[in-house]
Amino acid sequence: MIVVIRPGTPRAQIDEVIAEVQKLGYDPRPIFGTEQTVIAAIGDERTHHTLESLTVMPQVERVLPVQKKHKLVSRESHPANSTVNVDGVVIGGEKFCVMAGPCSVESEEQLMTTAEAVKAAGATILRGGAYKPRTSPYEFQGLGKDGLALLAKAKERTGLKIITELLSENHVEHVAEVADIFQIGARNAQNFQLIIAAAKTGKPVMLKRGLSERIDEWLLAGEYLLAHGNANLMFCERGIRTFETYTRNTLDLAAVAIVKKESHLPIIVDPSQGCGRADLVRMMCRGAVALGADGLLIEVHPNPAEALSDGQQQIDFAGFGKLMAELKPFLAAAGRTL
Amino acid sequence: MIVVIRPGTPRAQIDEVIAEVQKLGYDPRPIFGTEQTVIAAIGDERTHHTLESLTVMPQVERVLPVQKKHKLVSRESHPANSTVNVDGVVIGGEKFCVMAGPCSVESEEQLMTTAEAVKAAGATILRGGAYKPRTSPYEFQGLGKDGLALLAKAKERTGLKIITELLSENHVEHVAEVADIFQIGARNAQNFQLIIAAAKTGKPVMLKRGLSERIDEWLLAGEYLLAHGNANLMFCERGIRTFETYTRNTLDLAAVAIVKKESHLPIIVDPSQGCGRADLVRMMCRGAVALGADGLLIEVHPNPAEALSDGQQQIDFAGFGKLMAELKPFLAAAGRTL
Amino acid sequence: MIVVIRPGTPRAQIDEVIAEVQKLGYDPRPIFGTEQTVIAAIGDERTHHTLESLTVMPQVERVLPVQKKHKLVSRESHPANSTVNVDGVVIGGEKFCVMAGPCSVESEEQLMTTAEAVKAAGATILRGGAYKPRTSPYEFQGLGKDGLALLAKAKERTGLKIITELLSENHVEHVAEVADIFQIGARNAQNFQLIIAAAKTGKPVMLKRGLSERIDEWLLAGEYLLAHGNANLMFCERGIRTFETYTRNTLDLAAVAIVKKESHLPIIVDPSQGCGRADLVRMMCRGAVALGADGLLIEVHPNPAEALSDGQQQIDFAGFGKLMAELKPFLAAAGRTL
Amino acid sequence: MIVVIRPGTPRAQIDEVIAEVQKLGYDPRPIFGTEQTVIAAIGDERTHHTLESLTVMPQVERVLPVQKKHKLVSRESHPANSTVNVDGVVIGGEKFCVMAGPCSVESEEQLMTTAEAVKAAGATILRGGAYKPRTSPYEFQGLGKDGLALLAKAKERTGLKIITELLSENHVEHVAEVADIFQIGARNAQNFQLIIAAAKTGKPVMLKRGLSERIDEWLLAGEYLLAHGNANLMFCERGIRTFETYTRNTLDLAAVAIVKKESHLPIIVDPSQGCGRADLVRMMCRGAVALGADGLLIEVHPNPAEALSDGQQQIDFAGFGKLMAELKPFLAAAGRTL
Repeated sequence: MIVVIRPGTPRAQIDEVIAEVQKLGYDPRPIFGTEQTVIAAIGDERTHHTLESLTVMPQVERVLPVQKKHKLVSRESHPANSTVNVDGVVIGGEKFCVMAGPCSVESEEQLMTTAEAVKAAGATILRGGAYKPRTSPYEFQGLGKDGLALLAKAKERTGLKIITELLSENHVEHVAEVADIFQIGARNAQNFQLIIAAAKTGKPVMLKRGLSERIDEWLLAGEYLLAHGNANLMFCERGIRTFETYTRNTLDLAAVAIVKKESHLPIIVDPSQGCGRADLVRMMCRGAVALGADGLLIEVHPNPAEALSDGQQQIDFAGFGKLMAELKPFLAAAGRTL
Repeated sequence: MIVVIRPGTPRAQIDEVIAEVQKLGYDPRPIFGTEQTVIAAIGDERTHHTLESLTVMPQVERVLPVQKKHKLVSRESHPANSTVNVDGVVIGGEKFCVMAGPCSVESEEQLMTTAEAVKAAGATILRGGAYKPRTSPYEFQGLGKDGLALLAKAKERTGLKIITELLSENHVEHVAEVADIFQIGARNAQNFQLIIAAAKTGKPVMLKRGLSERIDEWLLAGEYLLAHGNANLMFCERGIRTFETYTRNTLDLAAVAIVKKESHLPIIVDPSQGCGRADLVRMMCRGAVALGADGLLIEVHPNPAEALSDGQQQIDFAGFGKLMAELKPFLAAAGRTL
Repeated sequence: MIVVIRPGTPRAQIDEVIAEVQKLGYDPRPIFGTEQTVIAAIGDERTHHTLESLTVMPQVERVLPVQKKHKLVSRESHPANSTVNVDGVVIGGEKFCVMAGPCSVESEEQLMTTAEAVKAAGATILRGGAYKPRTSPYEFQGLGKDGLALLAKAKERTGLKIITELLSENHVEHVAEVADIFQIGARNAQNFQLIIAAAKTGKPVMLKRGLSERIDEWLLAGEYLLAHGNANLMFCERGIRTFETYTRNTLDLAAVAIVKKESHLPIIVDPSQGCGRADLVRMMCRGAVALGADGLLIEVHPNPAEALSDGQQQIDFAGFGKLMAELKPFLAAAGRTL
Repeated sequence: MIVVIRPGTPRAQIDEVIAEVQKLGYDPRPIFGTEQTVIAAIGDERTHHTLESLTVMPQVERVLPVQKKHKLVSRESHPANSTVNVDGVVIGGEKFCVMAGPCSVESEEQLMTTAEAVKAAGATILRGGAYKPRTSPYEFQGLGKDGLALLAKAKERTGLKIITELLSENHVEHVAEVADIFQIGARNAQNFQLIIAAAKTGKPVMLKRGLSERIDEWLLAGEYLLAHGNANLMFCERGIRTFETYTRNTLDLAAVAIVKKESHLPIIVDPSQGCGRADLVRMMCRGAVALGADGLLIEVHPNPAEALSDGQQQIDFAGFGKLMAELKPFLAAAGRTL
């Protein structure tokens, strides 16, 4: 860390800071500049006490951390790309992965027809929420265990793998019976207890970015999974909250390139949540492919206008078929295959 | 809801929308304007299917909700201010409530000296984290049950009530043994399962605003508590995430006036998290009082420079004493007493 | 507009609002719902007084505008794509347009070598700032007229068209002598006097999006140009300001698809400003092409480490050559040629 | 500046960076840490080339500036508070300054009655826009010179000083004939040419914060004024743009305390723009006083519901009178007088 001393601080007060840096376990190296003095604090920032608390000393102007805090998820720790094997479907390799299905599981007919349709168009993983985190307590909260049973049935019938949201530490066991991938949603992006509970199962986890989570924080949330012994992690960019109101969220496609650079783990893009508008999904999928994403998570519904949740961002079967067909030249340009 | 039809849409396509509005349970009333047609959909938006899904129809330009979604927390449902009685300490009435204490419980000595100091200066509730949600898995995660035991001891010794963070549904029972108020933190602001679990105890809950939670969403998260039978709710403004980097968060003091206007429930302000800088806490407390807050949550530590978490935003005993003394004329101006 | 009346308002107070709506020039149509009353105000919102001022009446809860405010820039007013002809280089058609060059014009050698290099790699327009809006008055402010003279020389030598920033109404005349396109930067995105001054020349204008400008506001800033008689407008997405600190800005690629949908005018993407990091430029260019952008604005410098402004986001000649080569399959996938 | 070298970089590549630091005019001091190497670059960052461009070298991870860039506006350069004397009305001293009046000058009657009313309630400066920057070209753009003439008349009749917005470099001369203070608005917050033009007159300038301007950037925009010889500067916090939609902007009251700490110059708060809602103005004024603001800028209109611009945020005469009366105990608590 670098401790920046306020200009004009007398030497005795600089020495107080030096002493405090030493007391907190670092080797202090003061550098007396022409305008300002800084103290470089030598030591591993990840294992030592942070020095940011020193800003309460009036002579300290700022403290600048030097090291990145993430370790196991970092590209440095594992220079090659890693892949996640979801019961035979490999994510993060040359093959591009499409996960598709309804926002919420609503009925057997809805789910089965959707599963068949997305499989036919090239998806290998079926998405569908059984437990739904809804902004209002008066909105449809998902079918719960009945929804999970329908997902199990769809899996059996189509061979598609299942991704579904994990909302509660108390659901881990029974959701694990059906899910091939646990989805941890944006609202639980820093629910570390939930991440730790998911880690313990050893199952693949897809960790969505929080609504206003910086990329360094997102990587660190993922670090919780690896630090608790589960390396089957993939990140999912799903848009961040900004001032723009045309879209529900601002899909931060740069995050795809950044996660690829900073981490060895796969990254998926969710354009449905990312924009919150069905009419933008197709174009955003192209962008995600061009930026190097390893897969997509797309909401598909037989009749979006009557969907029980987030109908405005779901596309129908014809739209999904068209999207998949149009994606091919972009996948080829990016060196990926379906 | 108001369904806005795209300009130039032929009548037959407008009729399709009218039919769909009816099918989804509303009474449709088209209004043919000079420039644009809108369909007013008559019905209770809180109990009916949302019509936002109609935007997937190409002739629908936008859907504008009319009603507010929150009910039990709303000022309309309970025109007078409500108060929360924390084992004799009443929050939301004429008496202003100061909650103070360390960010994390670190040791017996740290906690006891702090408890005595904040009590002497006028606080009635002791804060202290036993379970800490930390951005990195390598940071201090709190003393857990040992921390709770120390809080129980401090309560016994000083008579202060205890507020401490609830991080996990699985902690509800043993945290409830010590806590007089459950604090639900910003990262769990929309962890509805946790809110429901807390609701079931009937205990007072202080619900912090999420990092990028709109006020309407925050009110609805509170609605989960009341809808699950627990009306002992207070809100806590603790800053929102913006582009500004001078402060850790932007404390949105307008939210105090807005919550007071939209809801009957008490609101507390946390200037420590709100700014993330000890040097701003004193001034932000004055602002909170002037805006009509019912209380403050302030981080106090015997030696902030050596605190195990968030030292940069904690103030020492002398600073806290000064703050409390200087607050008095502002409390008087706002018609409040300590 | 839709005027939403507060629930429980007595009829006499509703009538007051109706009278006011009429007084302000609209035809009021009240709709008495089961939960709430709304008044639909019939009339052209773009030519009438806005009714948002009615929210000062205590019985008015909200006012919801129905119409979009932009007219001449809208897709409705001109269903086909329009193109901008820059002295023979057509922007917005099948041919994709690459504008490249240094952030600032620094010297003859710097500019000439860059012009030759970007031309060789396929650019048709040379960018280079002669007047630079810099955050601090102590930073390099550009070469001014000397910079313009160098741009004129580079144009003569290479045949590249010139785009350069217009900072001041007082510069219009002499910048117009050299510039083929006026660039209006993010800081002046709502400097309407400058837009009007540029409009009067009839020259093509590239209007960057402001740091926190919503898309509807950006379209309206463009509307100023068309309303003042100049239809040679192209928009430029250059990133918006968010809480994320890894990148300088968050490049909002969805904006490309949205502008294409809402407007008939071309849109350019600036990945250099958009990310503020040279290492991300290549990937963001791919995304821009995939999303349907009509062109790119890329900062290229012979030696970015020693650039006088924004070196961190400029790429060198080799990097630019590689970028252009790698872009080709994506251009082909998007149905565009260089 | 501190140049952070990527972990594991071989010595030869570190030496390249050292050489480049030296070439760019700094004295490089490498510090070889246990985990990472940093190079402290000794030299005045405000007069030297920025080293941020070094991030284009692959071995450089980040560059951390150490010094603050602002100089003349800084508290360090002028430890005491400075005041601005507006033709006898002193801003920044013990006396608190209230500026009030309509958003736009609309008519003689409107302006004169408002001027009398705000004077009677305690305002000493009359605000009123003659030139209005409006989001849409089809909205009321202000009365221009006729508006200025009315402001001159109101000044003559009431003795109030005048503050009005300066929109264009070409307006400086004739606006200066009437205005006692130039207001530079949020949209022109980084229109440095306009700031320089205003500086040259020597007149007091009130510089509003941009919609998404960080405080360090705002201070630097103010630095342009002082660096061009005009020290009659006051800042004006008017809300920043965030994701929150209940209010038009988020009034950042912490900015008041921060500007007071970082700078010696006065700061005014504009709660009308800051919230965009008349019903919040009163409470936000209290907060501004409590935080230590030197004055307020309040929009007052005889009949807000029929105002030609921003009616929703204007208060009427009775509301203004009540606001001023209620403010008194808070002013007393803050040690200020009217």
